[in-house]
Amino acid sequence: MRATPRVRNLVFKPSSASSVLRERVRRPAFLEKLAQPEDLVPLFKNDDYIGWSGFTGVGYPKRIPTAIADYVQVNNLQSQNRFNLFVGASVGTEVEDRWAELDIIARRYPHQVGKEVAKGINAGRIEFADKHLSMFPQDLTYGYYSLKKKHGDPKKHLNWAIVEATAITEDGHIVPGASVGATPEILETAEKIIIEVNTHLPNLEGLHDISHSFIPPNRQPYLISHPEDRIGKTSIAIDPDRVVAIIESHLPDNTGGNAPETAESKAIAGHLIDFLSSEVDAGRLPKSLLPLQSGIGNVANSIIGGLAEGPFDKVMVWTEVLQDTFLQFFDSGKLDFATATSIKFSPEGFDHFYGHWANYKDRLLLRSQQVANAPEIIRRLGVIAMNTPLEVDIYAHANSTCALGSRMLNGLGGSGDFLRNAKLSIMHTPSSRPTKTDPTGISCIVPFVSHVDHTEHDLDIIVTEQGLADVRGLSPRERAPIIIEKCAHPDYKDMLLDYYEISLKECLAHGRGHEPHMLRNAFKFHTHFLEHGTMKVNGWD
Amino acid sequence: MRATPRVRNLVFKPSSASSVLRERVRRPAFLEKLAQPEDLVPLFKNDDYIGWSGFTGVGYPKRIPTAIADYVQVNNLQSQNRFNLFVGASVGTEVEDRWAELDIIARRYPHQVGKEVAKGINAGRIEFADKHLSMFPQDLTYGYYSLKKKHGDPKKHLNWAIVEATAITEDGHIVPGASVGATPEILETAEKIIIEVNTHLPNLEGLHDISHSFIPPNRQPYLISHPEDRIGKTSIAIDPDRVVAIIESHLPDNTGGNAPETAESKAIAGHLIDFLSSEVDAGRLPKSLLPLQSGIGNVANSIIGGLAEGPFDKVMVWTEVLQDTFLQFFDSGKLDFATATSIKFSPEGFDHFYGHWANYKDRLLLRSQQVANAPEIIRRLGVIAMNTPLEVDIYAHANSTCALGSRMLNGLGGSGDFLRNAKLSIMHTPSSRPTKTDPTGISCIVPFVSHVDHTEHDLDIIVTEQGLADVRGLSPRERAPIIIEKCAHPDYKDMLLDYYEISLKECLAHGRGHEPHMLRNAFKFHTHFLEHGTMKVNGWD
Repeated sequence: MRATPRVRNLVFKPSSASSVLRERVRRPAFLEKLAQPEDLVPLFKNDDYIGWSGFTGVGYPKRIPTAIADYVQVNNLQSQNRFNLFVGASVGTEVEDRWAELDIIARRYPHQVGKEVAKGINAGRIEFADKHLSMFPQDLTYGYYSLKKKHGDPKKHLNWAIVEATAITEDGHIVPGASVGATPEILETAEKIIIEVNTHLPNLEGLHDISHSFIPPNRQPYLISHPEDRIGKTSIAIDPDRVVAIIESHLPDNTGGNAPETAESKAIAGHLIDFLSSEVDAGRLPKSLLPLQSGIGNVANSIIGGLAEGPFDKVMVWTEVLQDTFLQFFDSGKLDFATATSIKFSPEGFDHFYGHWANYKDRLLLRSQQVANAPEIIRRLGVIAMNTPLEVDIYAHANSTCALGSRMLNGLGGSGDFLRNAKLSIMHTPSSRPTKTDPTGISCIVPFVSHVDHTEHDLDIIVTEQGLADVRGLSPRERAPIIIEKCAHPDYKDMLLDYYEISLKECLAHGRGHEPHMLRNAFKFHTHFLEHGTMKVNGWD
Repeated sequence: MRATPRVRNLVFKPSSASSVLRERVRRPAFLEKLAQPEDLVPLFKNDDYIGWSGFTGVGYPKRIPTAIADYVQVNNLQSQNRFNLFVGASVGTEVEDRWAELDIIARRYPHQVGKEVAKGINAGRIEFADKHLSMFPQDLTYGYYSLKKKHGDPKKHLNWAIVEATAITEDGHIVPGASVGATPEILETAEKIIIEVNTHLPNLEGLHDISHSFIPPNRQPYLISHPEDRIGKTSIAIDPDRVVAIIESHLPDNTGGNAPETAESKAIAGHLIDFLSSEVDAGRLPKSLLPLQSGIGNVANSIIGGLAEGPFDKVMVWTEVLQDTFLQFFDSGKLDFATATSIKFSPEGFDHFYGHWANYKDRLLLRSQQVANAPEIIRRLGVIAMNTPLEVDIYAHANSTCALGSRMLNGLGGSGDFLRNAKLSIMHTPSSRPTKTDPTGISCIVPFVSHVDHTEHDLDIIVTEQGLADVRGLSPRERAPIIIEKCAHPDYKDMLLDYYEISLKECLAHGRGHEPHMLRNAFKFHTHFLEHGTMKVNGWD
């Protein structure tokens, strides 16, 4: 990255390492690679393929991305050198969103959070594609993301890995922060590695279970039969010769607060906990339930909060991300063990967590996202998966990503990994959302979702504040009336029922009544919203 | 099932067992349960939950279903007693379609083939729901299909299992015919069992690898790392006390001929084999490829036929169903080992297969569909999956089941199991199909598929006779032009490109350009076809 032809030489200053850094970096040779971020900026070239550690805004590199952003800003290099950025999931907005604002992201896979990134994607400046988070690391190692890569070692899929560590072992292996994500595969496939050692965080050695990612035909089973089973090591093995520089960092993860509970989210949680209780009564679930997966957001918080006060003991969690309410769940004594690929606590949550480390450290394990989200393990354990969609249709297809079929919000994440393979696949959403002009202008139950991320073959339960629809074992014609009755907002029930009944009549008459639709009206909720700011249609003519 | 109040008593005639039957049934007590199908007909009651063995028209019970159908027909009991029918996949049309014609199927899960069954589903007489074939057996054991079951042992999910065997062991265990499918779980969950021992077929003992199906939290890894790994037994364990009767059968499986190759199917196969060769050259596939999965139909036949003459040696197959061309592939010396859940050869294919049994028996293994289609194993092995959709859209969503969004054709089968988890997920289809009035009246590449079974997150390669689109690592905006250019029929290229370009312009202008659509026109191909018999629209106003 050059503002002028001049490239500053790298200046390594091992003598400047702090004592805490010397303690954390147990491979002395690495200390000789200690650098300042500003000195490394000139190394990055247009069209570089760059992988970062990090997942859900935790464990990402902060100083190098910030130094690059500063350099671009100071030298007015916006939109000039642009990078292909690969991270397990989202990272802090102060780096990701800032890069997007400076227009130096050409491509961003496979997840993102942040207004500026989404804006860049929807404005056509950033190429983005969703991929199931369990598959992203393997597709990276397969070389599927570097088919167009033009420079650097052709045997390596990334030019750079920039990762955060809380310690480095004698072997040069990396102890991550509070997320693992795709860091092992990003390190494995990168030509050059920069490590930001974060001495603000505690050394989290022992929290992680890192297994090596083999490629077919050499893959082996993940020998995990219970959430607490360990199959790997406590650090990520790397080739030390590929380490270009070490940076010391004191910057905290930029996690926000918690999404506050609402009457709606509590009602949804109530329906769900009642349902789980009835499944235990019917003998279809053990009294301790089965390992839980829970998404992010206020409904997820209400559910986990509700479970902390609920009737289930010795619960286990097999999930992607842990939020603050899991601390409450642990502290209630009802949560025995949790495993995830990331801990996304609020700043206060992290303070509590690190302050009571002894209480948690033996009941928690972080794994790579390839393992945490593995269909193999999710199905084996019989996970209970709970996620929030944008909208669900009357036949139980769900849209998790694209508003009005086109506008990318946050991305798919691991919802597909979990919903496809869980024993109970649950989607929870408010029945409606407000628009500028109508407090219930958007129905989250629609005739036909405007984008399908999860099919009717994958969902068991749909729940809104209105009620819970159990569609297990039901045909499409049986599902539609139940979803409408139990889940739709009262403002939309008749409209949806009319759509279904007219569609049913028309389709049966023409011998295509399996999943009745009026294709001419299938997106009328959406097109009406585009024109009138509300989904409330005046009929189906 | 009663025409009159009189119920005939069962008459068991062990003395009437043929010598070949005595040889096949190695548990003498079972011979005392030998019965005639007609005598068992009165045992079946309205709303019974009945499971059959069978998969893709192979290994299904023939005599009992036929006796029930005869009885209904002779006594004019059509539409009176109606059954809930559960079979791993499809079975012979002479039983399944006949039951549908007599209107004695209330519910049919999770797959079907046959005009009359499809007609009943689309006319609203038969409740049908697709489920990934790997999940059907587990959902059966979870009790998800029997939530409404009203009579019989409440601890058993099915009232009846009627299964075909080619032998019964000393322990009373069942050696299936040329399919396994969901038979183990159907037997496990049924209150009463009837076994049709088919003495027309050879005793296939040794061909099967049957593993027990545990329920979470007691599931264990499938310790399969190569297609030839055995993890189970050669027969299905059952509780002998639940066996109500044994029937002798001489009826062959009613498999049809092969779908003949066409210039189109050969062109598709050609593109695909070229692509696989280039992946080997690029080092992304080993020279022996990775285990192949191939669907059913003429394109699949052309591909496997092409591979038999192709450049790849020591190939392995991990698939759902084997068709005749796999015999040619075996005989070419290029196929080392194949495993599936069913062998669906033509009658001549079966003659050849049984006639040269010694050549094949050590290179072939049949597993239950829960194992054959397991995401765990498909992902571990890095399977190359190839399936035919009805239609694919410009962003790589695929419709495998519902014409015009509503009319059920054959069902999903295992396409989702394989396409989601394969290392290479390939969909192959002709670019167009004829309608009554237009030889290219249906475009198989559409702006928005009218039903989504597979999402954009799951497909890597789309191939038609026109060419092959490699969409790995591409964003939606990058995918659309390539899919249109490489795959669409020339009659539709401009229309599709116009749709994309107008959508792109509109969506970028409104900050929703991630996956550009005009929702008002998204199904215009389909609605135009409904009105005019062709998808050729006159523009996008």
